[in-house]
Amino acid sequence: MDKIEQDRLKKEVAEKAADMVKSGMILGVGTGSTVAFFIDALGKRKDEDGLKLKAIVTTSNRSKKQLEGLGFKVSELADIDQADLTVDGSDRVADNLDGIKGGGGALTLEKNVAINSKKIVWIVDESKLVHRLSGFPLPVEVLPISCEQNFRRFEQEGLKPQWRMDGDKRYITHYGNYIIDLAADPVPAPHGLADYLDHTVGVVEHGLFLDMCDEVIIAHSDGTIEDKIK
Amino acid sequence: MDKIEQDRLKKEVAEKAADMVKSGMILGVGTGSTVAFFIDALGKRKDEDGLKLKAIVTTSNRSKKQLEGLGFKVSELADIDQADLTVDGSDRVADNLDGIKGGGGALTLEKNVAINSKKIVWIVDESKLVHRLSGFPLPVEVLPISCEQNFRRFEQEGLKPQWRMDGDKRYITHYGNYIIDLAADPVPAPHGLADYLDHTVGVVEHGLFLDMCDEVIIAHSDGTIEDKIK
Repeated sequence: MDKIEQDRLKKEVAEKAADMVKSGMILGVGTGSTVAFFIDALGKRKDEDGLKLKAIVTTSNRSKKQLEGLGFKVSELADIDQADLTVDGSDRVADNLDGIKGGGGALTLEKNVAINSKKIVWIVDESKLVHRLSGFPLPVEVLPISCEQNFRRFEQEGLKPQWRMDGDKRYITHYGNYIIDLAADPVPAPHGLADYLDHTVGVVEHGLFLDMCDEVIIAHSDGTIEDKIK
Repeated sequence: MDKIEQDRLKKEVAEKAADMVKSGMILGVGTGSTVAFFIDALGKRKDEDGLKLKAIVTTSNRSKKQLEGLGFKVSELADIDQADLTVDGSDRVADNLDGIKGGGGALTLEKNVAINSKKIVWIVDESKLVHRLSGFPLPVEVLPISCEQNFRRFEQEGLKPQWRMDGDKRYITHYGNYIIDLAADPVPAPHGLADYLDHTVGVVEHGLFLDMCDEVIIAHSDGTIEDKIK
């Protein structure tokens, strides 16, 4: 499939998601190439259907700028109660709609937006689909103060930790922390691992998004669109 | 008991703890008025007994300055493997040696030092003793991005959240986060609450130190010293 056909499909998925958005909603908006089309579709609905949102929050500066460029006012998460709907991408989506997110390094904000949303819809292309979570290292955001200890601990647990790098330096998150990507593949016992990571002192957040996503809209390479509802 | 007698007792407790420190150890040092006496006692042992530590880490700038003033070199936690022994204070200590810490706002660093220590000794005066954890609001360090949502959630859970203030503004931790003090008293089901907080997205750390402390040395108001070992 060429880039034009791929983009046509992403656009179609994005418009399907944009049709779920209703006036008066508080909307969460994620990041990614398909989400960029979603934001365009939102702008179109604003101009053509008079779509009026109560508030919008987003998970990246890129999406924020795109939204503001289209005339939307973007709020901080702390200023809203909860989002009625959040539309985001995902790095991997399993059959049961569990996901791995954080390839872009914004997992902490993404999870905070997600957890404060009534409904979560992911829009992805087929390449993100897996039967069970695999094929993508699991990002874990860690406090610098005990990062070496946690790195070693993850090694001992067989989780194959790797430092997220930015050139020859460690990648630094928006919150001044590091990311350790766990390359154990497939993700071993995701719920157990999430529980372990939640209890690990020095872990700020991890990229396992379990039991969160309600619906996934998928652009297949054969040109079809699939809608999976949990 | 007057201040002079109180300080004499604290000093005695501190010296008892300092006697546990052996040359070649990696030592963790906390903060507090009794710990300040402990650091003095360490300096005395360095001068008189030739105490030579492999490394020292600490949980506050105040302790760091005091240690450096006595000629000790202070390392970062990330630069060591784990401490052989950590000596710290605690805001409350229960009969089973579980504790509440974080009254000074440094709970995240304190817990990261504690979790990376082979042995933990708390030195406290009698006023910190309780049968079960109570009498002190439980500090929870939260990310600003979803702090309002978490505050409301804690309210709904009956945990009586209160913002830690610094004058008329919210107190900001070393890591740029806020502290919500949970005033539900006594601490309801500490292990269950710790589990709930560990799983709450947006919580960086909390002040429940459960199953961590190995020994508490207590200065009683009747002038006696008690040593409780787990």
